[in-house]
Amino acid sequence: MSDDRPIALFDSGVGGLTVLNAVARRLPFENLLYLGDTARLPYGTKSPQTVQRYALKAVSFLLARNAKALVIACNTASALALPTIRDFVSVPLLGVVEPGARAAVSSMRKLHGRTGPIAVLATEATITSDAYGTAIRGHDSSYGVLNVACPLFVPLAEEGWTDNDVAEAAAVRYLDPVIRARAPIAVLGCTHYPLLKRTIARALGKETLLVDSADSAAAELDRILPLELRRKGPEAGTTKLMVTDASERLRRVASRFLGREASSLELVDLP
Amino acid sequence: MSDDRPIALFDSGVGGLTVLNAVARRLPFENLLYLGDTARLPYGTKSPQTVQRYALKAVSFLLARNAKALVIACNTASALALPTIRDFVSVPLLGVVEPGARAAVSSMRKLHGRTGPIAVLATEATITSDAYGTAIRGHDSSYGVLNVACPLFVPLAEEGWTDNDVAEAAAVRYLDPVIRARAPIAVLGCTHYPLLKRTIARALGKETLLVDSADSAAAELDRILPLELRRKGPEAGTTKLMVTDASERLRRVASRFLGREASSLELVDLP
Repeated sequence: MSDDRPIALFDSGVGGLTVLNAVARRLPFENLLYLGDTARLPYGTKSPQTVQRYALKAVSFLLARNAKALVIACNTASALALPTIRDFVSVPLLGVVEPGARAAVSSMRKLHGRTGPIAVLATEATITSDAYGTAIRGHDSSYGVLNVACPLFVPLAEEGWTDNDVAEAAAVRYLDPVIRARAPIAVLGCTHYPLLKRTIARALGKETLLVDSADSAAAELDRILPLELRRKGPEAGTTKLMVTDASERLRRVASRFLGREASSLELVDLP
Repeated sequence: MSDDRPIALFDSGVGGLTVLNAVARRLPFENLLYLGDTARLPYGTKSPQTVQRYALKAVSFLLARNAKALVIACNTASALALPTIRDFVSVPLLGVVEPGARAAVSSMRKLHGRTGPIAVLATEATITSDAYGTAIRGHDSSYGVLNVACPLFVPLAEEGWTDNDVAEAAAVRYLDPVIRARAPIAVLGCTHYPLLKRTIARALGKETLLVDSADSAAAELDRILPLELRRKGPEAGTTKLMVTDASERLRRVASRFLGREASSLELVDLP
């Protein structure tokens, strides 16, 4: 038996393509369906109500496309809308905050004897929700959490300014509290941030280890996906990319996240 | 006779509040209705089709609220959607690109003998449309136009980073072609940019004069608004502010543009 229905990934934009890549590596036979709500991005500066409304529309759309499992590959939507979505769906469902928190705690445990908080770098909406803090304390209440909103990192990544003086000046400003707190771990709590990894690492110095949730989310999906929902090989699965707004700029940004040419972005309309 | 129906202003966000202020000063007896589509901002990175669709929804909403005249107080929507909107409405209608272009040409004429192009600083979508170039050449085809997209200026203004090292580094990068071209005039072709005026002026030096469209748009509205549509005094008109998404962050940003506390932002839902 083989279940050919797709696993669907949803993001506010194209940052979640890093999660798509991780899932494709981990579950190579699965058909993947990706939806980026690019017409309404960014989510990270918006209110919980609006993020929940938009996320539910996207999820309805993906279920209508026969998704057998759902990955909310956007930290802001995971932080603000996962319980709302859970009430709404019966297929296996996964956000990226819980896997990211788990990866942070697991990395922290390996640093025997190091003290200091786990820093969470994320959008304003994710930070305000304290979703990472809640998830981290759920694993180990002895760890401190330092929440740091870095709103400009998203437009910097989209502009392709990931490694210049503007990015560096922004990183130095945002990350000063992380340095002063001597945080051993910093979670990249937004799917855009891995593009700025080098600049963030340089600003933080070698004492702080960066953790992102893409690999951890893919591993978690592999863990929760029931055997009867899996697609059998030997042919590799297909990948379909859909967005709610497409421009030349978006294709460029998408290619940057995908690590290869984003040749076919299908334009779809969400109500 | 006095027409109490409101004049409506529409923007993708709250940058258009500078236009609202200019209109209120110019036409103090008019009732004003402002709609910021904050749930779907920014428009400046999106495709013409999506901007047109969103603008038409906003305009329908404002007409249903009995608007007697419409100001599209968003450069991107003016550049990309004005003809589409014009087909759709019968009330007096005004964008900000044409008034901005007129102000630039008028300033240029006063600089007798100065050569060099008129620089247009705007969002990627506005620049791609070349709407300012078209409007400026419509007034005087002898002027050169230098289009410069400055996408990061919008998130910088929203972050409140209008006058620090990050803003300065971004301004120096974006404005280098303007300096090299020795442009005598630079149009602030996005309603967010006046917040960065000091940083932009410092990067450009004293040889370049900055022009923005808010006052020019208000003057143009005063010119085209027929006598029978005007509201008579002596009581000052009222102002109603509506947004499609409201957060604490947005209130802060709105207050910055308004120059006073944005106390009552009514939350409305666009389809």
